[in-house]
Amino acid sequence: MTESWVNSAERIGVDLHLELAGPGGRRAALTRALREAVRSGRLAPGTRLPPYRSLAADLGVARNTVADAYAELVAEGWLTARQGSGTRVATGMAHLGRPGKPEPRRAAVRTPVAAPPRARGPRHDLRQGSPDPSAFPRTAWSASYRRALQAAPSEAFGPGDPAGRWELREALAEYLARARGVRTEPGRIVVCSGFAHALRLLFGQGAGGVLRGPLGVEAYGLDFHRGLLATAGVRTVPLPLDEHGARVEALGRERAVLLTPAHQFPTGGPLHPERRAAVVDWARAQGAVVLEDDYDGEFRYDRRPVGALQGLDPERVIHLGSVSKSLSPALRLGWMVLPEHLVGPVIGAKGEREGWASALDQLALADFVRSGSYDRHVRRMRQRYRRRRDRLVAALAAQAPHVEVTGIAAGLHAVLRLPPGSERSVVKAAAWQGIALDGLGAFRHPETGMPPSDGLVIGYAAPAEHAYGAALDALCAVLPPE
Amino acid sequence: MTESWVNSAERIGVDLHLELAGPGGRRAALTRALREAVRSGRLAPGTRLPPYRSLAADLGVARNTVADAYAELVAEGWLTARQGSGTRVATGMAHLGRPGKPEPRRAAVRTPVAAPPRARGPRHDLRQGSPDPSAFPRTAWSASYRRALQAAPSEAFGPGDPAGRWELREALAEYLARARGVRTEPGRIVVCSGFAHALRLLFGQGAGGVLRGPLGVEAYGLDFHRGLLATAGVRTVPLPLDEHGARVEALGRERAVLLTPAHQFPTGGPLHPERRAAVVDWARAQGAVVLEDDYDGEFRYDRRPVGALQGLDPERVIHLGSVSKSLSPALRLGWMVLPEHLVGPVIGAKGEREGWASALDQLALADFVRSGSYDRHVRRMRQRYRRRRDRLVAALAAQAPHVEVTGIAAGLHAVLRLPPGSERSVVKAAAWQGIALDGLGAFRHPETGMPPSDGLVIGYAAPAEHAYGAALDALCAVLPPE
Repeated sequence: MTESWVNSAERIGVDLHLELAGPGGRRAALTRALREAVRSGRLAPGTRLPPYRSLAADLGVARNTVADAYAELVAEGWLTARQGSGTRVATGMAHLGRPGKPEPRRAAVRTPVAAPPRARGPRHDLRQGSPDPSAFPRTAWSASYRRALQAAPSEAFGPGDPAGRWELREALAEYLARARGVRTEPGRIVVCSGFAHALRLLFGQGAGGVLRGPLGVEAYGLDFHRGLLATAGVRTVPLPLDEHGARVEALGRERAVLLTPAHQFPTGGPLHPERRAAVVDWARAQGAVVLEDDYDGEFRYDRRPVGALQGLDPERVIHLGSVSKSLSPALRLGWMVLPEHLVGPVIGAKGEREGWASALDQLALADFVRSGSYDRHVRRMRQRYRRRRDRLVAALAAQAPHVEVTGIAAGLHAVLRLPPGSERSVVKAAAWQGIALDGLGAFRHPETGMPPSDGLVIGYAAPAEHAYGAALDALCAVLPPE
Repeated sequence: MTESWVNSAERIGVDLHLELAGPGGRRAALTRALREAVRSGRLAPGTRLPPYRSLAADLGVARNTVADAYAELVAEGWLTARQGSGTRVATGMAHLGRPGKPEPRRAAVRTPVAAPPRARGPRHDLRQGSPDPSAFPRTAWSASYRRALQAAPSEAFGPGDPAGRWELREALAEYLARARGVRTEPGRIVVCSGFAHALRLLFGQGAGGVLRGPLGVEAYGLDFHRGLLATAGVRTVPLPLDEHGARVEALGRERAVLLTPAHQFPTGGPLHPERRAAVVDWARAQGAVVLEDDYDGEFRYDRRPVGALQGLDPERVIHLGSVSKSLSPALRLGWMVLPEHLVGPVIGAKGEREGWASALDQLALADFVRSGSYDRHVRRMRQRYRRRRDRLVAALAAQAPHVEVTGIAAGLHAVLRLPPGSERSVVKAAAWQGIALDGLGAFRHPETGMPPSDGLVIGYAAPAEHAYGAALDALCAVLPPE
């Protein structure tokens, strides 16, 4: 096989790669290669081709060879030539696979494995886990991004510090102290791409990981996190829950415990102050650490806000947060507030250079926080979600007053209690009606000794504002009668 | 310990978290808490405090308690009160730790573990691996980002598809076909956060990984990649190199091979056409796959561009690329062009939702490619790097004509050959002169049977334009005399 390659001239706007192969002379090969490039769509309609001279130089062929090939393809209708605008790919013919003399093609790429994503999801999305995507503050974020990009020093576009941009770590230290009562300074913060990434950094890499199991977890929690930990070879030990949160007195020889102290996920409710103190005491006595998942610490409605557990002992508590609920899971930015002795190991686990979080996004978030846009957005969303929660409660009071709703003082979801044994059929009925939601059972640790409790976890953040009322009506319609 | 919490009023721009604890009444506790917040910098100079009413409501104290606390702190100079602009944190006093009656603080966070990054690096940076950070196309990228953000559908701000944004996969499929001769379609492309992430996705998770070792690698290559593979438990088998690239006939029962066919890293030079064909034949016969690291496929100068190896057999070659060299390693965006049978497993390894690459960056890159900005930038950088390479060659010709320079037809670095046994002392002398560079030995696979070859790997992309001449002079000064 003879192979050769075409480079674009510097004067045209595209790079082009062709192969001159197969039977016949060079002119025939070039004609065939160009025709194939147009037919397959690799050369898009309207694309300007290189001038004869530069293509000829690139290919090491005579100028006339290129001119002849172009002329033949113009004659065939694949290309158009116009005075002053050079030779271009014809519009309207590309991708048509025009009949005539089809070239023998090399084995084509097989049929597509995935179609473009369809704009179809469930009719009503009441799953927990993400904020209202239509509420993303496009204008303010765009302004922060632009400002950050303009103000960035050149080194920001080079390899990144795995700890994260200092600008962001400073902004976060100030914000978390002010809004969440976190006690830290920028050198203790490591940027990551979200909560799951933080778990991977802490527990990944097997025996060489930063932390080791067994890890105490709440008896109800995200299945996704448990799966991630299981993959990393970390054994999780479920802690029972009651109305005061996780029963941390059940902790024994675990090496660490993962809690959602501000608002237990998914059952709701803050960890009782005595248990907050008790779990820190346990960690001190055992030489263990507490992982604080502050997943929706910013969204609280009725009760006094609960400060970060980390404030009780910055050397024993790892505080983990992200923008996934407060801004958007599309951004992939999170942070770990670390005890001093873990900063080095976590940075070591990240590697020599930043491999994950975009430095430009980090700078944009620093500006977004510093400029007050983050506070404004959180406050606006808090009002919006509170209204949604109130509408959920009102709809239930009106249409299903016998269904108890709990865990509503904070967060982006509520728990609806169901009669024993009914959860599965209600989830099924909901799916039948096009409602996406989760049963409480989906969050239950398989090894917990707690008796199963039937319920629904209703996320009220995801539906678009205009679609929320219909989603609530649909939900009430599938709830069991009294 | 009595704990209570202050929420900001909705009317002010900040969230605030305080603790009312310690001796004395509530007024004393509030005064102390606010003073401490100002002193520690948690309340920044100029910050507006909540109105009496809302703070009192949040705290459950009388309005006068708040008014009295504010008045005391105004008298002390910590706060200022002005008609119409409310009560604010005084400017000029914060962080001063003003003497007087220092409050007993809780155990403070220990001394910082890291100082802010200093603007100090090596005097001359001639390490390979990243593009000129001062050449990032801020204006064009910013424009793409803004356009992408405005045009994005709402769902783009929700949880992401782990395969990546369809818009980007389409743009990449078109670009890679046109510029690199890759044969694919968007459904075969999976977005990731860079080459290292791609390796982790392919080989991570131990026996449950997408691919398994042993993995053939080039005898010279990035130590970082070998380390990453070793951590994942993948054995690497070094292939000898000669003037035609990797000697792929040495491949046996390996399950995969990782190559840099366009420009062997770091020694330079493309893989010979016969070897390209041979390695694909080997992969077909063995049921193995070829990993094509197209790390600087866009930067080629003298010789004919070399198309992607992937074009020879899209079902046997995984084509891996990223923007780390072409745009910036700060962005954390890369792509994997996969054989059909690997698309599902790779997406499975990524997880149910996108956990890494920002959807907004993905949309921005799609716009950047579609709008032609990517082609323009690559072309501009190709010219710039070619000039730099020419200056390197000229400087050597003038100042150290006995030093052979190789691997200069493409890429962002060159290899300077040194007399046997001299590499270590030259690298040391360079470090002594403030020149950061790598010896060829740093890239050598520890198990290769190839005789060691002394040399320097000189990256010519990283220095700022104005600093490049001095870097070259400094380099020539440490080269061994004839």
